[in-house]
Amino acid sequence: MYSLQFTSESSSNGMRERDFTVGEVPGVLWSPLTAADRAPLVLMGHGGGTHKRWPAMTGRAQRLVADGGFHVAVIDAPGHGDRPRTAYDEQEIAELYRARAAGEPEGPIVVRYNAQLAERAVPEWLATLDALQELPEIGTDGPVGYFGLNMGTAIGVPLVAIEPRITAAVFGLHWPDALAEKARRITVPIEFDMQWDDEHIPRESALALFDAFASKEKTLHANTGAHKELPRFEADSAVRFFVRHLGASVAAPV
Amino acid sequence: MYSLQFTSESSSNGMRERDFTVGEVPGVLWSPLTAADRAPLVLMGHGGGTHKRWPAMTGRAQRLVADGGFHVAVIDAPGHGDRPRTAYDEQEIAELYRARAAGEPEGPIVVRYNAQLAERAVPEWLATLDALQELPEIGTDGPVGYFGLNMGTAIGVPLVAIEPRITAAVFGLHWPDALAEKARRITVPIEFDMQWDDEHIPRESALALFDAFASKEKTLHANTGAHKELPRFEADSAVRFFVRHLGASVAAPV
Repeated sequence: MYSLQFTSESSSNGMRERDFTVGEVPGVLWSPLTAADRAPLVLMGHGGGTHKRWPAMTGRAQRLVADGGFHVAVIDAPGHGDRPRTAYDEQEIAELYRARAAGEPEGPIVVRYNAQLAERAVPEWLATLDALQELPEIGTDGPVGYFGLNMGTAIGVPLVAIEPRITAAVFGLHWPDALAEKARRITVPIEFDMQWDDEHIPRESALALFDAFASKEKTLHANTGAHKELPRFEADSAVRFFVRHLGASVAAPV
Repeated sequence: MYSLQFTSESSSNGMRERDFTVGEVPGVLWSPLTAADRAPLVLMGHGGGTHKRWPAMTGRAQRLVADGGFHVAVIDAPGHGDRPRTAYDEQEIAELYRARAAGEPEGPIVVRYNAQLAERAVPEWLATLDALQELPEIGTDGPVGYFGLNMGTAIGVPLVAIEPRITAAVFGLHWPDALAEKARRITVPIEFDMQWDDEHIPRESALALFDAFASKEKTLHANTGAHKELPRFEADSAVRFFVRHLGASVAAPV
């Protein structure tokens, strides 16, 4: 088991921000400046082609920390951010750019590549969660959520399917092809985002993935707009979802 | 044009509550105790077989008043609450009970009866809105929303389709049969609730009605559970929707 090494610490926008590594995987942990003794942890998975400090990650982290009092951890996915790409990564990325330029569907490539990334990423998340729970302000018995869209769903669905410590998750914006079978093993509460006019993911595909989750409590949020036009208010909705299911920390203003 | 007559006034749960009539139509107007000079108005339509003071109405009114600072008006639909039933009402209600007891689908009867009620109810809502806008705390130039599920959608969709003063609406839990054509004329922002496991409304029917709205901004909320199991957090979501689109009143705590 790897332990967590903090490599730097700062604070901004009312959050404490600590860079860390677990083995060779770099991550960032955002926490409230005035934290309770213990607070729930939300793991966040970033989207394809981005990284742990992408604006969508820092923006969501800020809402989760400020409005829920949560700890929020993001790690770079394999081949993303500060991590090296393998020859396979380079090949799939080139294939994706080729398809995009040729006006061909991206779905088959994204589904295949993300499934391969998930095989590498899930063990990294398990090791990261083990290490994070060694921290006294998180602990081994506190609630844990997962929040990831796009590639963050491709990695998060297989993760949540096998990891009972994660008790609530926000997913969305992916295809059912490689994920529906694993989604059928998930029973924790789910909030699922889709775009009604997604130019990459057919409407029926998004609905089929939502339908696959075995969760007794699940909510679909479908908004008009293209793949990248998810409204910002869905980030606030995700925070409220986690407050409902993980509980806010004692120090939180909710 | 009928003017609005107040018949009683009280206050409870932090709300000012005034019963009124507009012509022969009785209604209730809930307002903040410490109201701004002007505040947006939300019209609420109740469900079939219920009335203006049904717990779902008072509960939603309390959230809209407390969290949005809105005025909230509900009127009894034709044949409901304090209003007499026609022979046609009695006939359709008997037919509905018969179908229910026989285990036959309720949809065709509800769709037909609610469409007939909407023809009677829409002119009453227009007269009520005219009269409410005569009140100085509402005014003729303030924003107006509509919130109605079930029968409240069957009446609300034809109303919003022809009434440009209503600039945002929450609908849901109905069939597309009599409503899709009118929904296609609606372009204001919409939040639409459906139940994923509705025993009366097929999933594809609910999705078809959501799809029919011509609104550039619309959001579908689908939750697991049966027809009557809409989660309570959807009422809070509706309040936030109206705050986003109508603006909170100056006195509101949002």
